[in-house]
Amino acid sequence: MLKTIKQLAELIEGTVLGDETLSISGVASLENAKTQDIVFVENNKFLTQALTSKASALVLSKKISLNEATEKAIILVDYPKLAFAKIIREFFPIIKPTTTIHPTAIIEENVQLALDTSIGAYSVIRENTRIGKNSSVGVHCTIGQGVEIGEDSIIHSNVTIYDQVKIKDRVIIHSGTVIGSDGFGYVFHQGQYHKFPQVGDVVIENDVEIGSNVSIDRGALGSTIIGQGTKIDNLVQIAHNVKIGKNCVLAAQVGVSGSSVIEDNVIVGGQVGIADHVKLETGSIIGAQAGIPTGKIIRRGLTVWGTPARPIQDFKHIYAHTQSLPTLKERVIKIEEQLSQLSKNNQNNQNNQNNQNDET
Amino acid sequence: MLKTIKQLAELIEGTVLGDETLSISGVASLENAKTQDIVFVENNKFLTQALTSKASALVLSKKISLNEATEKAIILVDYPKLAFAKIIREFFPIIKPTTTIHPTAIIEENVQLALDTSIGAYSVIRENTRIGKNSSVGVHCTIGQGVEIGEDSIIHSNVTIYDQVKIKDRVIIHSGTVIGSDGFGYVFHQGQYHKFPQVGDVVIENDVEIGSNVSIDRGALGSTIIGQGTKIDNLVQIAHNVKIGKNCVLAAQVGVSGSSVIEDNVIVGGQVGIADHVKLETGSIIGAQAGIPTGKIIRRGLTVWGTPARPIQDFKHIYAHTQSLPTLKERVIKIEEQLSQLSKNNQNNQNNQNNQNDET
Amino acid sequence: MLKTIKQLAELIEGTVLGDETLSISGVASLENAKTQDIVFVENNKFLTQALTSKASALVLSKKISLNEATEKAIILVDYPKLAFAKIIREFFPIIKPTTTIHPTAIIEENVQLALDTSIGAYSVIRENTRIGKNSSVGVHCTIGQGVEIGEDSIIHSNVTIYDQVKIKDRVIIHSGTVIGSDGFGYVFHQGQYHKFPQVGDVVIENDVEIGSNVSIDRGALGSTIIGQGTKIDNLVQIAHNVKIGKNCVLAAQVGVSGSSVIEDNVIVGGQVGIADHVKLETGSIIGAQAGIPTGKIIRRGLTVWGTPARPIQDFKHIYAHTQSLPTLKERVIKIEEQLSQLSKNNQNNQNNQNNQNDET
Repeated sequence: MLKTIKQLAELIEGTVLGDETLSISGVASLENAKTQDIVFVENNKFLTQALTSKASALVLSKKISLNEATEKAIILVDYPKLAFAKIIREFFPIIKPTTTIHPTAIIEENVQLALDTSIGAYSVIRENTRIGKNSSVGVHCTIGQGVEIGEDSIIHSNVTIYDQVKIKDRVIIHSGTVIGSDGFGYVFHQGQYHKFPQVGDVVIENDVEIGSNVSIDRGALGSTIIGQGTKIDNLVQIAHNVKIGKNCVLAAQVGVSGSSVIEDNVIVGGQVGIADHVKLETGSIIGAQAGIPTGKIIRRGLTVWGTPARPIQDFKHIYAHTQSLPTLKERVIKIEEQLSQLSKNNQNNQNNQNNQNDET
Repeated sequence: MLKTIKQLAELIEGTVLGDETLSISGVASLENAKTQDIVFVENNKFLTQALTSKASALVLSKKISLNEATEKAIILVDYPKLAFAKIIREFFPIIKPTTTIHPTAIIEENVQLALDTSIGAYSVIRENTRIGKNSSVGVHCTIGQGVEIGEDSIIHSNVTIYDQVKIKDRVIIHSGTVIGSDGFGYVFHQGQYHKFPQVGDVVIENDVEIGSNVSIDRGALGSTIIGQGTKIDNLVQIAHNVKIGKNCVLAAQVGVSGSSVIEDNVIVGGQVGIADHVKLETGSIIGAQAGIPTGKIIRRGLTVWGTPARPIQDFKHIYAHTQSLPTLKERVIKIEEQLSQLSKNNQNNQNNQNNQNDET
Repeated sequence: MLKTIKQLAELIEGTVLGDETLSISGVASLENAKTQDIVFVENNKFLTQALTSKASALVLSKKISLNEATEKAIILVDYPKLAFAKIIREFFPIIKPTTTIHPTAIIEENVQLALDTSIGAYSVIRENTRIGKNSSVGVHCTIGQGVEIGEDSIIHSNVTIYDQVKIKDRVIIHSGTVIGSDGFGYVFHQGQYHKFPQVGDVVIENDVEIGSNVSIDRGALGSTIIGQGTKIDNLVQIAHNVKIGKNCVLAAQVGVSGSSVIEDNVIVGGQVGIADHVKLETGSIIGAQAGIPTGKIIRRGLTVWGTPARPIQDFKHIYAHTQSLPTLKERVIKIEEQLSQLSKNNQNNQNNQNNQNDET
């Protein structure tokens, strides 16, 4: 597939410098670009690499000052990465599965499938479930009883959705993910753990994307909620009754324990552990591998790191101080020696003086 | 479904205060309770919230002193959470799958299925496997050759059990979990890793519950063992030849390396990492995200935290000390200044004295 | 199955001490050995345990000096563990699936299956995919469009391979693993995260083994690459555009973020977190649970530990110093007291002297 610079510039509403009749055959990263590829540059830092790459064209931020002449075609835009995402989609359009119910799919009683729903081979849709228009379910999925899936959602192959889970519109769920399994709730009584029934549900709001091999437990009573626009990476654990707000980002292997609340626009780094009944207020940022203890509140906009987590400046400050601990100890040893010497001298002085006094 | 307070009180052998003819329609948490709901309160801390909630009835600990009058019906019991678990099951009974072998299930040769066994759509039971009475296997499960599953066990959808794994009675396994995969064993020889065959098995004892997306490897030689009544949360890793005792709790994303031993009644917090050949003695508690180094023994009843883990008092003590490190350093700087001044003064004194001595 | 010591010694090219006509019926670990079992001993440390075990025979390193007489048969070799791996395979040969395409497997159009390929029940092979000779795909696998799988590879049951993934020869992939899911890439614009299309692929080189429930994302643009002979344990996360070299070992629950590079022969301990754009140079070793910050380079052959990671000697040194922080603080307090006393004495001395001077 070939696109001219003119076509691509129109797509992203950009301004062309250079040859707008040039044909582009693909998108690439700066390292891998070949002739006829287009690449994007967000800031001056990568400009030289882009100009010396084999790419034939660049999508460039209007903010970048282009001092040298170049034979490459250039498209100027306000947001080059966003624009480039559109260009990628032009070369790699989302191929919707042919909207059919595969003959091996098992659709149980009282299931409502809207128009243009696609269900992959061997998937099982249990009774009383509803799937909205234009949504697709991959191969080998198990969609439980009484589940609701909205419109334009994509459930990739091999996803397991337990009963009563609610998934809204434009949600994407990757393979191996399990939503709605029982929360980890027990009553310890007479030396044994007795299961506390987990009878709540899970609500996944609009525009959420969930990676592969993620586990999201149902509420014990009430709901586990993933808010609109939130993105969850692979192998993340979300426990029962967790509430996550809008437009949050949870990196891979994060664990969130029972009943914790993550407000809006929170960023959680990889492998962070959040204990139970924690609150991460709006806009807080949790550094990778940090640990937030039970019941802790991280205030609005605060960035924290470490286990137990502290404000990141404190963490770095303390870290630097521990780094120089051996030096500090040596200084203390030296002080002790000086002090001992001084003390001895003083005693001598005293004695001298006393002697003197005796003499006088 | 409606239940009277009288019926519920009989179920949990409790004492009623107030109107025992009151009808209850559901269970709820304190935050979400509506009229006609029943809630439970374990201690005084949540009593006010319960009394001001919309719930019509409370299950209350006998230990709580109820000073104010209330229109809500109250059921007094010794163990309110345990009692409430029973009430939840009354409103949400476990719906056993209709005991049938789904026509799409593949049952290979020489498989023994006891009475009232249920096998879900598309599940595959390989040859020489035995499943006990009243056990159920969900949709899309793969149960390997020579597997034994006991009675009253629930294998949820999309579980993979490798050959020769033994699962006893009343075991629950959630979706996405893999049991019996090869342990991570190699011989490094001439610059390459050669696979050390993993020919042991896995034994899951009675009353174990295993969360979703858990990985439990088979023994290299001999067995990996999960002891009776132990509960394992989502995304946990259990390596080859690990032995876990009775009534342990492993929170989400814990990793246990090869040949480590966890005795009885051990509690392991989320994201804890346990290296190989570790022993966690009976009743020890490992704080979230802690790391236990190779070969380490954590003594009976000890609580530890940090990486490498230390007794929790030490951890907190040291943590507080690192917190005040900047202050400590400033004190050392001040001491050095004072010392330098003192030294100078002393020198002056000495000189003075010498002068004086000279004078005298 | 019985094997004589003579047969086993020939298999591993070892030298026999004792009765070479002895029959051996199985392999075992030292703890579980029974009569007629053979065990292996790599170093003197376990020799006594081996000699007093019930095993009838030992595979022993030529380096071990055997001072006491024993009735056990002994086979001496240079590399006992490697030799023992061969003996295990003799007793537990790899049983190849009968090379057939199960009638329930769905093979879409234009799929090329080489000779002796085996496809398990209910597996789905999408169009334009190629599988090499002697490779096997388990039960319930989804192999996407345009996938290439080489020769002698084993894809266990319930594995999901997205479109365009390339898997070479003698690769082993365990159950629950997902390869080729979308990387975690978004453009934040006007308060929302917009998906950055993930249109690259994944390449798994020869002799790689991947554990269960692993997530490996496809490149955004370009490839995610797992190099020849590398071994990946369970529940590991590999993000988009990660490049891993040859003969690396990644223990369980490791997370590697986007665009990081791991060179050859690197060892990564369990639960290690590697941020984006990191480089781990050849032969570096990362201790369990360590965290490597964004953009960091770990030099050739270096061993590091902690978060953020430092050279392991530094880590241990600092750790020991933090351990003695309370003592250090007490020493500082004592110094302050002494100093205060000294200062007071000096003042007195000074006063005395002044008085004396006045007197004189």
